[in-house]
Amino acid sequence: MNQNLRSQANRIVKEAIAAVQPDAAVRRALAGKEFPGRVVLVAAGKAAWQMAKAAHNVLGSRIDKGVVVTKYHHVMGEIPGVLCREAGHPVPDENSFSATREALEAVSGLTEKDTVLFLLSGGGSALFEDPLVSGEELQDITRQLLACGADIVEMNTIRKRLSNVKGGRFAQHCAPAQVYAIVLSDILGDPLDMIASGPACPDTATCAEAMAIVEKYGLKLSQTSLELLRQETPKELSNVTTQINGSVKELCAAAAKSCEELGYTPVVLTDQLDCQAKEAGAFLSAVAKTHAGSGKKLAFIAGGETVVHLTGSGLGGRNQELALSAAMGIAGLAGVCVFSIGSDGTDGPTDAAGGYVDTDTDKTLKEQGIDIFSVLQNNDAYHALQACEGLVITGPTGTNVNDVAVVLIEE
Amino acid sequence: MNQNLRSQANRIVKEAIAAVQPDAAVRRALAGKEFPGRVVLVAAGKAAWQMAKAAHNVLGSRIDKGVVVTKYHHVMGEIPGVLCREAGHPVPDENSFSATREALEAVSGLTEKDTVLFLLSGGGSALFEDPLVSGEELQDITRQLLACGADIVEMNTIRKRLSNVKGGRFAQHCAPAQVYAIVLSDILGDPLDMIASGPACPDTATCAEAMAIVEKYGLKLSQTSLELLRQETPKELSNVTTQINGSVKELCAAAAKSCEELGYTPVVLTDQLDCQAKEAGAFLSAVAKTHAGSGKKLAFIAGGETVVHLTGSGLGGRNQELALSAAMGIAGLAGVCVFSIGSDGTDGPTDAAGGYVDTDTDKTLKEQGIDIFSVLQNNDAYHALQACEGLVITGPTGTNVNDVAVVLIEE
Repeated sequence: MNQNLRSQANRIVKEAIAAVQPDAAVRRALAGKEFPGRVVLVAAGKAAWQMAKAAHNVLGSRIDKGVVVTKYHHVMGEIPGVLCREAGHPVPDENSFSATREALEAVSGLTEKDTVLFLLSGGGSALFEDPLVSGEELQDITRQLLACGADIVEMNTIRKRLSNVKGGRFAQHCAPAQVYAIVLSDILGDPLDMIASGPACPDTATCAEAMAIVEKYGLKLSQTSLELLRQETPKELSNVTTQINGSVKELCAAAAKSCEELGYTPVVLTDQLDCQAKEAGAFLSAVAKTHAGSGKKLAFIAGGETVVHLTGSGLGGRNQELALSAAMGIAGLAGVCVFSIGSDGTDGPTDAAGGYVDTDTDKTLKEQGIDIFSVLQNNDAYHALQACEGLVITGPTGTNVNDVAVVLIEE
Repeated sequence: MNQNLRSQANRIVKEAIAAVQPDAAVRRALAGKEFPGRVVLVAAGKAAWQMAKAAHNVLGSRIDKGVVVTKYHHVMGEIPGVLCREAGHPVPDENSFSATREALEAVSGLTEKDTVLFLLSGGGSALFEDPLVSGEELQDITRQLLACGADIVEMNTIRKRLSNVKGGRFAQHCAPAQVYAIVLSDILGDPLDMIASGPACPDTATCAEAMAIVEKYGLKLSQTSLELLRQETPKELSNVTTQINGSVKELCAAAAKSCEELGYTPVVLTDQLDCQAKEAGAFLSAVAKTHAGSGKKLAFIAGGETVVHLTGSGLGGRNQELALSAAMGIAGLAGVCVFSIGSDGTDGPTDAAGGYVDTDTDKTLKEQGIDIFSVLQNNDAYHALQACEGLVITGPTGTNVNDVAVVLIEE
């Protein structure tokens, strides 16, 4: 193993993850920000507690009151003046509904000088919900939509109208107060209307579209639901400002900055990678083969969330597969490494964030009788990387903004 | 369809292919070259006729006799004194075998003053063949290798040992005559022993490697074949001089130059792409999504030779699959197109060189009830591209230096 490259990789991983911590994202978004009136904090999602804590560290007693709704076991302590609630995820439960109603209560009666500081992260769709129909009917409709093959856009068009907070309605409840939304995105391309079903984002779909979907699939709905589908969602929200301050884009940018500090010229290829993990590894190794030996120190960066096709029963994750697959392509190629990590620190069902490979990985494994092609067929990247000290272990990081893969070329 | 992008794509394809025509390469390689004795011309591969024609233009009646073996419909006219044969590709047939035997006859009985002018291009593995096993078994093995997704290096390692001409064995038959080989490379990284399975090149692959491939893919072989795999190929050849001209590197450079002339900033990502075709398309569309709308005119170029995993029974080729797969990622993304072509003008068993897709492709196909995902599952890219005028048709180009894929981003 190239120890110099390995230690550079570790540094880049550390700095990239640090840059997308929820508290860092919140601090960046609040820097220099002034709020004229009262400030009510509402935080929803898997990183809600971290984001609320960071906001409290910056604003302290400027926060008038607040509600946090996060996943079970995700509240790490008290935040003065803020109700911290835990609820069901990925399936919403009564605690989701009651905490959301507490949030609606907290934002009622505000004036136009006041601000709702809305901190949103992944998982918000289930955690932040106040349904306008019974839980049973909501489940039944979801089942019908899934059974008839409706796509995600069609599903959201229907579901947003059955909710008191989704599709921009939460922001309507906050009016006339201003909503300042800080978003940690776990969806590639940061579609604001999809993240937590867009509580503070205008809905582009119309009632006519909703009714067309009902007709198209012959959905069976109660009279109540049909009436709800005829009620329009907000098409414009004049009281909302949104900052996407933590996403895979920032993860890539932070990795690029870290590479640059180490003397590499960084090239961000994409922040929306969604192909097969091992094919992405092959693509990145092909990039390495072409640019290695060019006399330039180059870093190619690809962020996103690849997918793994299960063909075996081994242990691994998409980042580990990507890296191990790249090891075949860069075998023997001097001064080159590839590493890939999940920003949450847990890649697949493993204790590793991802994997690191270089010039020597393939040889080191062959010497132990390990054939990378077979390992990948068995989806067992974890044990192969373990055998060549190629696991990247960070522990849970407290953030989740997808993955980043980096190719370093020393010259 | 974006007609502006489409016409730019056509121009880039035309210019890139023009830049890698074999004629100039042959002329360069023969300039000032003197041959003391008789000259016997043997040309094999998809560019065999063009190369032979160019050689005849230079040497005229100095050519004593000759044999051209190329793909069906690739002979463009007579060449005085030279037998022009057409045969099966990618699966060799009886015409491949008989033409190759004619070549072996032509080079027999020569003296050490004589020269075999050996013009080699891609496709030679199938076209230039005198098998040591039955035609049926050879075809069966080739089909097995294609179906399991073996790469060309692996395919050649196996096929050399089942052949009377591959792996340096043709040069052995030419001895004591000198062999002057002019090579157009269709293999990434230009490994001479692999181009057309290296009829005039010492073989670096070993019997052990051949057996490992049999195991890796679970190939079903007869006892005769297994015994042939254990017979070593020549590791040294003293009567051969080789000139290598033309490769995918030049194809990429020519595409980049053409893009630049159209106002794009070209970025050659790789000239050694060898991953799955549809995953390469997904990767390139992810690159497009990240860079579209940046205000810059960018062209990303990826050369190489991707592979297709057969899961269906449709019609297509790797370039068509790559492009069609990219269409999903760039759906609705304004001012973006992706195209991919084989420099030989024939992608898979089709009359198309490759495919072109843009912003509108997915929509156009959906309106006709065509779902890209299903089309790719059935390996039927040809018919889908045909339905949206996305086929790139050049006709046989007379050259073969792998493929190039291009992403154009208008701004």
